[in-house]
Amino acid sequence: MNAYIKEKLELFQERNQNRGRLLVSCPDKPGIVAAISQFLFSHDANIIESSQYSTNPEGGTFFLRIEFECPSLLEKAKEMESEFAELADRFSMEWSFIHVYQVKKLAIFVSQQLHCLRELLWEWQSGDLIADIALVISNHEEARDVVEGLDIPFYCIPANKDIRKQVEEKQLQLLKEYDIDVIVLARYMQILTPEFVASNPNKIINIHHSFLPAFVGARPYERAYGRGVKLIGATSHYVTNDLDEGPIIEQDIARVDHRDNVERLKKIGASIERSVLARAVKWHIEDRIIVHQNKTIVF
Amino acid sequence: MNAYIKEKLELFQERNQNRGRLLVSCPDKPGIVAAISQFLFSHDANIIESSQYSTNPEGGTFFLRIEFECPSLLEKAKEMESEFAELADRFSMEWSFIHVYQVKKLAIFVSQQLHCLRELLWEWQSGDLIADIALVISNHEEARDVVEGLDIPFYCIPANKDIRKQVEEKQLQLLKEYDIDVIVLARYMQILTPEFVASNPNKIINIHHSFLPAFVGARPYERAYGRGVKLIGATSHYVTNDLDEGPIIEQDIARVDHRDNVERLKKIGASIERSVLARAVKWHIEDRIIVHQNKTIVF
Amino acid sequence: MNAYIKEKLELFQERNQNRGRLLVSCPDKPGIVAAISQFLFSHDANIIESSQYSTNPEGGTFFLRIEFECPSLLEKAKEMESEFAELADRFSMEWSFIHVYQVKKLAIFVSQQLHCLRELLWEWQSGDLIADIALVISNHEEARDVVEGLDIPFYCIPANKDIRKQVEEKQLQLLKEYDIDVIVLARYMQILTPEFVASNPNKIINIHHSFLPAFVGARPYERAYGRGVKLIGATSHYVTNDLDEGPIIEQDIARVDHRDNVERLKKIGASIERSVLARAVKWHIEDRIIVHQNKTIVF
Amino acid sequence: MNAYIKEKLELFQERNQNRGRLLVSCPDKPGIVAAISQFLFSHDANIIESSQYSTNPEGGTFFLRIEFECPSLLEKAKEMESEFAELADRFSMEWSFIHVYQVKKLAIFVSQQLHCLRELLWEWQSGDLIADIALVISNHEEARDVVEGLDIPFYCIPANKDIRKQVEEKQLQLLKEYDIDVIVLARYMQILTPEFVASNPNKIINIHHSFLPAFVGARPYERAYGRGVKLIGATSHYVTNDLDEGPIIEQDIARVDHRDNVERLKKIGASIERSVLARAVKWHIEDRIIVHQNKTIVF
Repeated sequence: MNAYIKEKLELFQERNQNRGRLLVSCPDKPGIVAAISQFLFSHDANIIESSQYSTNPEGGTFFLRIEFECPSLLEKAKEMESEFAELADRFSMEWSFIHVYQVKKLAIFVSQQLHCLRELLWEWQSGDLIADIALVISNHEEARDVVEGLDIPFYCIPANKDIRKQVEEKQLQLLKEYDIDVIVLARYMQILTPEFVASNPNKIINIHHSFLPAFVGARPYERAYGRGVKLIGATSHYVTNDLDEGPIIEQDIARVDHRDNVERLKKIGASIERSVLARAVKWHIEDRIIVHQNKTIVF
Repeated sequence: MNAYIKEKLELFQERNQNRGRLLVSCPDKPGIVAAISQFLFSHDANIIESSQYSTNPEGGTFFLRIEFECPSLLEKAKEMESEFAELADRFSMEWSFIHVYQVKKLAIFVSQQLHCLRELLWEWQSGDLIADIALVISNHEEARDVVEGLDIPFYCIPANKDIRKQVEEKQLQLLKEYDIDVIVLARYMQILTPEFVASNPNKIINIHHSFLPAFVGARPYERAYGRGVKLIGATSHYVTNDLDEGPIIEQDIARVDHRDNVERLKKIGASIERSVLARAVKWHIEDRIIVHQNKTIVF
Repeated sequence: MNAYIKEKLELFQERNQNRGRLLVSCPDKPGIVAAISQFLFSHDANIIESSQYSTNPEGGTFFLRIEFECPSLLEKAKEMESEFAELADRFSMEWSFIHVYQVKKLAIFVSQQLHCLRELLWEWQSGDLIADIALVISNHEEARDVVEGLDIPFYCIPANKDIRKQVEEKQLQLLKEYDIDVIVLARYMQILTPEFVASNPNKIINIHHSFLPAFVGARPYERAYGRGVKLIGATSHYVTNDLDEGPIIEQDIARVDHRDNVERLKKIGASIERSVLARAVKWHIEDRIIVHQNKTIVF
Repeated sequence: MNAYIKEKLELFQERNQNRGRLLVSCPDKPGIVAAISQFLFSHDANIIESSQYSTNPEGGTFFLRIEFECPSLLEKAKEMESEFAELADRFSMEWSFIHVYQVKKLAIFVSQQLHCLRELLWEWQSGDLIADIALVISNHEEARDVVEGLDIPFYCIPANKDIRKQVEEKQLQLLKEYDIDVIVLARYMQILTPEFVASNPNKIINIHHSFLPAFVGARPYERAYGRGVKLIGATSHYVTNDLDEGPIIEQDIARVDHRDNVERLKKIGASIERSVLARAVKWHIEDRIIVHQNKTIVF
């Protein structure tokens, strides 16, 4: 990591020593918010942001995201977490207690088209994407210069469907070595095996170049052109073993018309892909997303 | 037709006695615009608006829409049209010579959901949709009051798939009787037979409640909810014999999120359906649409 | 009120007997959410929706909107309200305790342009605007038919700046008689006196036909045309004694280009005005808006 | 210029040897299109794209942009141009005859905020902005690395209002030396003198960080925050001697809410500034803009 960005991250960490987040899913019933806010109050924590949603107040599932500021969190985090575990048990919660101080570690996978990678690196350099981009993995060489120019390790692992297993072994080895939290497929044009996906549940974020569920699969811009649509789009989603069927995080579209040929659709689409993927990654990093039954709640 | 709207239409006709339109498709080659503009100039016509597009200047198809003002068009239209026919022959054109004075006759088909019908009637009353809405046909009674309240003939023809033939015979009889130019399916929830469609090529405009090609067929809002999309949409298209596969005229979308249940999606979607269908109908009425190989050029 | 809408409102009331809302503003400090959620829990209330915002967790102002479901609220509301008053005192809160069962009473003011009025009536008829539209007041006759056609009382009070006092006296008399909660200026083209405004703080919602602060005052479309803007807009805001300077509730825009003359700008703009005002009125009615220092927090 | 981009430009030139453009403004009357299309046809030119607009067919001003493909244009351009001059005289045209082969030379002015510069360089590298970015001038050093990294000459000329004359002399000297066609102010935070502006009419493109005419002048994001707007925007315009009052080329907006502080408004706004300026520069470079009475026609 280069010195300039390192300094930014350290400043962020310094400012967020006392900042925590709680993510909760559980069966809905009265008293959940009362219990959690009482817990936070008892630790002198001040709620900064709070969002909640219930699929149905009568017997549905309740979701909560709270961001709070708590004096001496750095020292108390462990203790608070184990205290919260008891409360969580009482309400049968799935939950995470997140210390914002711990910046997430990202691996970016990319092939030959660099626009999504560039956007992420840009946002990262300008301090809008607060993460530790630990490495970039590609099956091609195109991205090497821009990545290494920012002092980020770059690994070129050529890939094709015959050597998928060996390739993924190397990749998993690297992910482990760098202790990666999130994998971003920034136009990585290889299919992942079920084993690779299974070992990273809700941790792999993809960008697909259509407004799903339209144009699942290959060559969506060519097919959009063929169908004569008046809108094209892009979709960012978590990767599951059903191709392009994972939980959708974000989508956006742009207007096109009869004059736009496939080449122009790709250019227009590239700009949507950039912003949609960047938003999805930021929301993930800020712990704003809860996955529930192949859908996302985005707080 | 009630007196107020009748007066508006008459005023429109008076103002457009000299207004004409040319729609042209032909193999592209040099000299087309020169020939047509020379033709118009020789008749003292002034070009008001002109749009053109070529799929490929080398051997592609050329499309043109010209709107012009020509002194004494009411008297000269026939003669000009036959003169243009010769020019058109030379370039192997498909073409229409349209006298704006002749207001198009619309039939609106509707079932029980009235929002699209209401929007069209609203735009019509406020003078934004210049057409003769000659009749409304429905398989239910819900629309009767609003339609008859505007002095538009309303025909209720109950329908189901067992009596499709008889129903369509009655409908075709009415379309003939009222000399209809355009059929607008404003959420008409019956499937049309291939014969009905074939007898009205590029004349039936439908609104489908999804951003096609996503969610072709029934219950698109329910399926959009199930898939967890972050955008919902609507599509207006010409009806062909492939369900929801006809040439797309216009599409639009709205942003939704995890809080929006199916009922809310329908409400949000209704507002998109309204505006998308209204735009498509207006463009058709203003002769802005050329259909080419299951796509539309919209000028 | 006609029978159909009356039935809808009664159904809404029946369904919302146990539904309440709390709106709170107070100096931010730890423990507010804990106290309120504990209060609700102690009354067996289940939180349905909760939104909060703080201008600054250190010494700023805290805002909260909670919607909850509470068994037997109809019987307990009074008692709960006075119990909450004590809690509110402790935190120096400004607050409202709202029983959703009590539908808000609206007066709509309109002049000769009816598109905003029509939109509100449409949303009201289709059940999207849950309110008691108690009367419509106009300085002209244009709106009478559409208003009385829906069995809503219509009062024509001709107005001009010389008789402003007398006109407003009549209006205030009617507002009192009908026990009005909200006044919607749906393109009412008369300026209100400071006295009228002062007697209805944050209760008068206006639609201005520009994206404020551009084109404050008269003839915004003409001035937008003169300036050659590429976007036009509309703004809904609470009325204060500074013309078009009150707290902005909602804004939206549409794209225009060099071909759009003033008449077309007005048509395009009308459609934005309709939707912007409708959203603002709905948010007000659902108690989603808190005014703070000439700005709005919209939850 | 680096080798990669040089190669792209040469490829573009090779492909566009026969590509020309005509831009015309003149008093409207019948026969203009006929004359021009006859002229092009007589030179075997094929019209690729044609757009026209008239402020008023009766005595208004007529505007036309035609893009055409003409065999051997490289050899015939001079001769055609002088032949067109006679035709132009007959209709009292203001006109340009443009050979697309001749790529425009750009100077970019920038201060310390680099996002607009970066966007232009990005589009340039990816082949979406076909121009010769001949030099970058700044009053600060921040941009040096990114500019020189692309082998573009970078000149740092410190500036302040006391030395404006001397600074502009140096700048004008450079513009002359590099034979510059267009000056792009990509967040250049110095005011230009009337002399500088006068010597480059309709050649200086600025990006202003508000949706003009709202928030003319300094600190627009701070003022947008203060006013509590729900939309922020950016405007690209030609520079005239009235601050932020020049002909608007393009505008766009983004939605914001009460949670967005000034810092967030700036981040959101930066992304609008980037795309709005890039579009404006591209349209200028493709000769799509005609300035008429402090407005733009954008074809």
